[in-house]
Amino acid sequence: MNAEIISIGTELLLGHVINTNTAFLSQKLAELGIDVYNTSVVGDNRKRLLEAIRSAAARSDIVVTTGGLGPTVDDITSQTISMLLRKRMVLNRRVLKDLENYFRFRKMKVLTSSVRQAYVPEGVRCVRNKVGIAPGLITKYNGRIIICLPGPPRELGPMFENAISPYLKKRIKGTWVIKSRTVKLASVPESQVNKSVKRLLKLKPPTTVGIYAKAGQVELRIMAKAKNEKDVSASILKIKKKIREKLKDFIFGYDEDTLESVTGRLLTRRKQTIAVAESCTGGLLANRITNVSGSSKYFIMGLVAYSNSVKENILGVSKESIEKYGAVSQEIAIAMAERIKLLAGSDIGIGITGIAGPGGGTPAKPVGLVYAAIIIGRKKILKEFRFKGTREEIKFQTTQDILELLRKNI
Amino acid sequence: MNAEIISIGTELLLGHVINTNTAFLSQKLAELGIDVYNTSVVGDNRKRLLEAIRSAAARSDIVVTTGGLGPTVDDITSQTISMLLRKRMVLNRRVLKDLENYFRFRKMKVLTSSVRQAYVPEGVRCVRNKVGIAPGLITKYNGRIIICLPGPPRELGPMFENAISPYLKKRIKGTWVIKSRTVKLASVPESQVNKSVKRLLKLKPPTTVGIYAKAGQVELRIMAKAKNEKDVSASILKIKKKIREKLKDFIFGYDEDTLESVTGRLLTRRKQTIAVAESCTGGLLANRITNVSGSSKYFIMGLVAYSNSVKENILGVSKESIEKYGAVSQEIAIAMAERIKLLAGSDIGIGITGIAGPGGGTPAKPVGLVYAAIIIGRKKILKEFRFKGTREEIKFQTTQDILELLRKNI
Repeated sequence: MNAEIISIGTELLLGHVINTNTAFLSQKLAELGIDVYNTSVVGDNRKRLLEAIRSAAARSDIVVTTGGLGPTVDDITSQTISMLLRKRMVLNRRVLKDLENYFRFRKMKVLTSSVRQAYVPEGVRCVRNKVGIAPGLITKYNGRIIICLPGPPRELGPMFENAISPYLKKRIKGTWVIKSRTVKLASVPESQVNKSVKRLLKLKPPTTVGIYAKAGQVELRIMAKAKNEKDVSASILKIKKKIREKLKDFIFGYDEDTLESVTGRLLTRRKQTIAVAESCTGGLLANRITNVSGSSKYFIMGLVAYSNSVKENILGVSKESIEKYGAVSQEIAIAMAERIKLLAGSDIGIGITGIAGPGGGTPAKPVGLVYAAIIIGRKKILKEFRFKGTREEIKFQTTQDILELLRKNI
Repeated sequence: MNAEIISIGTELLLGHVINTNTAFLSQKLAELGIDVYNTSVVGDNRKRLLEAIRSAAARSDIVVTTGGLGPTVDDITSQTISMLLRKRMVLNRRVLKDLENYFRFRKMKVLTSSVRQAYVPEGVRCVRNKVGIAPGLITKYNGRIIICLPGPPRELGPMFENAISPYLKKRIKGTWVIKSRTVKLASVPESQVNKSVKRLLKLKPPTTVGIYAKAGQVELRIMAKAKNEKDVSASILKIKKKIREKLKDFIFGYDEDTLESVTGRLLTRRKQTIAVAESCTGGLLANRITNVSGSSKYFIMGLVAYSNSVKENILGVSKESIEKYGAVSQEIAIAMAERIKLLAGSDIGIGITGIAGPGGGTPAKPVGLVYAAIIIGRKKILKEFRFKGTREEIKFQTTQDILELLRKNI
């Protein structure tokens, strides 16, 4: 089976908005064994959208559209579907009820413009939107499946997972099974990973490996295709083993794992608690740690000690040390880690100090210089980093390398 | 003048990576008055890439490619350009020197696979990469301009701004001037904005207005086209005034402004300092505030008081209050704001407590319930929020609404 994705919105053609939905859907459809050969973008224009859906349905088994289901004059998807099917727009009472509940929960008055979203083409199946207002639509047209999803990724994602994916699974029996596995590596340059698995990267289908460099990490994506679940799993396992043989030390996780989720699992398992004192990262490390559900079990506290007076008065780092070594120094990173550990009564303390830029650098201490200390019981792990990039990138890379250092040492 | 964008990378076709470069370039080219009619994606395949560049150059004045300039076997752009131009690959000494400096700064050994990136097609102009290793390439082919840019957005962005944009500006004199302005609004639903400026949203070129809903904010983008700078600025100003008339109270900034940068400017101007005590947002508010360069002037400290014991022992919120009202309550938000203000000696204190989920909710205190308090001198601003979404979305929406509340009250 194959599919096409049509993204709707003039904002995409003008580059005002980044098209994340196409990537998300391409990946999810590939995982279902559905090939995507074509993706396109059309503006907020009924005639062109109608034409795009008709052409896509002439070539492909499934047409998925995203966007254009909102309450504004630009939102044309439902009406275009009603033109395609030659059906009138009718009020869907369940959608209306969901809409009323949506506003009630927020203690807001129901907006009349929103009520428009409860009108859908007659006979079309509505898919509940548990995050926003616009329902998804499923219909058949000339024997093809047409699926219309809302544009906001936070609405589209759950709707695809909860309703569209199960719907499609029922309809694609007997075809290929495609599976993918992502191996995630940190603290290793892309070129080194590339060199280590050069042969794997040249593999041809049905099993392929791709290499992707992301901020502070490298990912190897294994994709395999076979007639059944067992064969496809065996292919993936074989490649995974080969990658592990070459790069074991750098692998921090798989698939949805993040450095913070993996570290969190280790801390939970070891029943260790953690506290962090941040200067240049400004709360990003605490934020990443607490993005993990259940982090309240091991995360005791974070302190963003941005000014020297906070380092001295709240954290209790001695004024003399700051004067002697400078606030950005290995000594102060150690003192921050020691003091936060003591203050929180945690098993692990982390201290970070550095220059995130763009101002504040000197020849001796340039922008991108970061000192970190991790104290685990009596063990001290010290590190000097040198990063390049924007302020936000330096903050991110710092937390990335510190989380990896933490993972390796707990 | 018109342009086409070709994104290179199998990872894009498979949806492994989101194509942010096309949006970035579409926007930047539009701002230069260059129309983008076509964007496409090709995999890591020399023959198909060669064909794609040839077809694009047959139709358009400018062809911009992104990606495929890295050190791996998949990186085929330079070699494809050498095939297109029928020129051999030669070592560029300046690129080699930049590459050596790149590794020296990081105290790393030069990787042999990286040296490959210093080889470029003979006669092609190299554009310096100040963030990464791969140089950009500029060449002419059949009278058309071919520009090859690296794939990582953090390398592509600065390279476009610093080198490509000035290069193109010199070549597009006498054509249309296109300008855009984005009006940013917070704490207002998209449907309300839509209703207020319904007429503007229906405007046809040369002046148009688009509406875009983003996480926690709505943006109105004005685009105008004219023969000269003066006319285009006048058109934009006229529309901007109309938007202000209708929605003045919700506008927090323009163009690159963020809630944190605007709030930061206000605090700097008023010489006020701030400190934050966060529970459910876990450091995200501190992180956003410190993403602004120069925030050390007004941001004194942040405390992530995740556990009740930290709220009691470090922050000094009374145990009795926590037991009486519960950690997630308006009273505790106030106490957190008061205590952090006192602890930091700042002019403003913010306290946040809530349930980010997915666990921890009850019928009385559901996931998404957040209490916040902002204390400015003797003024107390209290707020109860109710959000829906994932853990990370609830964290983000909370900080978004608090920053807006802060902006309106300082």
